[in-house]
Amino acid sequence: MKEFELIKRFFENKGPKRKDVLLGVGDDCAIVHSPAERDLVVSCDTLVEGVHFLADMPPEALAHKAVAANLSDLAAMGAEPAWMTLALTMPRVDEDWLEGFSQGIASICEYYRVQLIGGDTCRGEQLSMSITVHGHLPRGKGLRRSGAKAGDNVYVTGYLGDSALGLMHILGESSLNEKAAELALQRHYYPTPRVFAGQVLRDIANACMDLSDGLSSDLGHMLERSGVGAVIEVDQLPLSENLVESVGREHAIEMALAGGEDYELLFTVPQSQTGVLDLALKEAGVKFSRIGQIKSSPELNYRLDGKAWRSQAKGYQHFE
Amino acid sequence: MKEFELIKRFFENKGPKRKDVLLGVGDDCAIVHSPAERDLVVSCDTLVEGVHFLADMPPEALAHKAVAANLSDLAAMGAEPAWMTLALTMPRVDEDWLEGFSQGIASICEYYRVQLIGGDTCRGEQLSMSITVHGHLPRGKGLRRSGAKAGDNVYVTGYLGDSALGLMHILGESSLNEKAAELALQRHYYPTPRVFAGQVLRDIANACMDLSDGLSSDLGHMLERSGVGAVIEVDQLPLSENLVESVGREHAIEMALAGGEDYELLFTVPQSQTGVLDLALKEAGVKFSRIGQIKSSPELNYRLDGKAWRSQAKGYQHFE
Repeated sequence: MKEFELIKRFFENKGPKRKDVLLGVGDDCAIVHSPAERDLVVSCDTLVEGVHFLADMPPEALAHKAVAANLSDLAAMGAEPAWMTLALTMPRVDEDWLEGFSQGIASICEYYRVQLIGGDTCRGEQLSMSITVHGHLPRGKGLRRSGAKAGDNVYVTGYLGDSALGLMHILGESSLNEKAAELALQRHYYPTPRVFAGQVLRDIANACMDLSDGLSSDLGHMLERSGVGAVIEVDQLPLSENLVESVGREHAIEMALAGGEDYELLFTVPQSQTGVLDLALKEAGVKFSRIGQIKSSPELNYRLDGKAWRSQAKGYQHFE
Repeated sequence: MKEFELIKRFFENKGPKRKDVLLGVGDDCAIVHSPAERDLVVSCDTLVEGVHFLADMPPEALAHKAVAANLSDLAAMGAEPAWMTLALTMPRVDEDWLEGFSQGIASICEYYRVQLIGGDTCRGEQLSMSITVHGHLPRGKGLRRSGAKAGDNVYVTGYLGDSALGLMHILGESSLNEKAAELALQRHYYPTPRVFAGQVLRDIANACMDLSDGLSSDLGHMLERSGVGAVIEVDQLPLSENLVESVGREHAIEMALAGGEDYELLFTVPQSQTGVLDLALKEAGVKFSRIGQIKSSPELNYRLDGKAWRSQAKGYQHFE
């Protein structure tokens, strides 16, 4: 199968059609309309086989995760998703795999009303995919990781560490029962980008980012960009019953701090906005937990039951 | 060196700063303003080592070519370049290589006023890069490859086949003298995207695309998308003196038809606009040649000195 047939068969005319797309896949470029009164938001993320995922990951899950990781970046800014491009590099044309993968792309794109507007498909030794997503924001309302202020409360959405548990299971490093494995795999393969929560937080949070490399590493970046520090109460970390029962509380805390790919939001809110936050996120049906506080001194400290606690957590680092 | 240090050192605060970029590299997303009265144009292209370029390609040239290939897609629509994202996958951190590569990116971005607004850097076995470029157009003025009409004259800018000659030299498949090799390598390593010519053609051409896979293959796509055919006079193909002297006329014609990566524009213009075309492109100082005519019958035929001519040319195909 030639590249052009492949694109036509698997990637043209799949997923939603948006009114703001004038020309989609198939020409030298796509042509879109970005609304005049809104900011345009752009982000880019790559997944590489053997680095971000293992060779036997089901293609539907891989497609979901690749798009979800990108939508999670949009969510972290508070943006509404709109369009994406996909650069796909493959060692060979496997039609069954492509069928599953393109179906996975179409499915998550349909759910979030994201249109695939272009891309590139080429041969390479290692399977990899780069996605660039585009979204919109009311002017000047983008949430940045650099806005955390001393005194802000620190929050995360959802639960942390479950994706890492799923990875442990895949790597054969855990002995989970069937039900526990299924729950963890679901969280590892099908993360939920917090698109709606991000939009709700636009007028409430001082800083926001998504958790992809692990809380300790990601929070470190937020603190550095904001020029502040934080105290994190590790007993307040949201741990699922499944995680605690599977690995014990202490190990669960480490996994919540170091485990990547949760794709939850990490955000800080000034004391004055905590009531508004409670009302807004509860109305939106989003679970969230206060896990600590921003400090002016630029250090990241952990506490357990009021005492200092040393974490081994580093988070994922490329090239280390 | 960690990923975040690498991005800071090589990719943050390099190249031009545009006023329409509110937030560049360093957060979850970039934030930009797309002008209200203009269409936004998006394209995406990947280069993989061993597929699109050889391991010893100088990093400055590679950076130039990766960006130029993408700007060439914008040029084919008639768009003005604005922003890009870069997803870079590398087997290891080679600081000398990164210094050259990031300098090459900054240099071409400076020339075309393109701002690098985001990206991703990760580890992978094979060096590869995916770039997504963004540009702008007056509303509804985008040039498409699907607009060719029977009776249109077919044109190309510049010269064809020189990039292929450069590749032959690199592969040791030619015995060029020093001067010839230098000229051919320059064309192979440092293609010029026809950004200005594309903008001039917006109100003149019926169809336009850029030549990346080779004229015969690319023209085939234009004809298919437009539902028409063409006759190409191969004696009218623009061949550089260097190419003809290096490989002879017949071989030069085949290289002009099959050789990829010329990044010239292929476009069709109705008979009524030929005067306007002459004036406009001449004023812009762009070399262009009429190479044939669009026909209603959906076939692609070649003629040499008035007689049918059979080409071996297929153009580059992934996965074949």
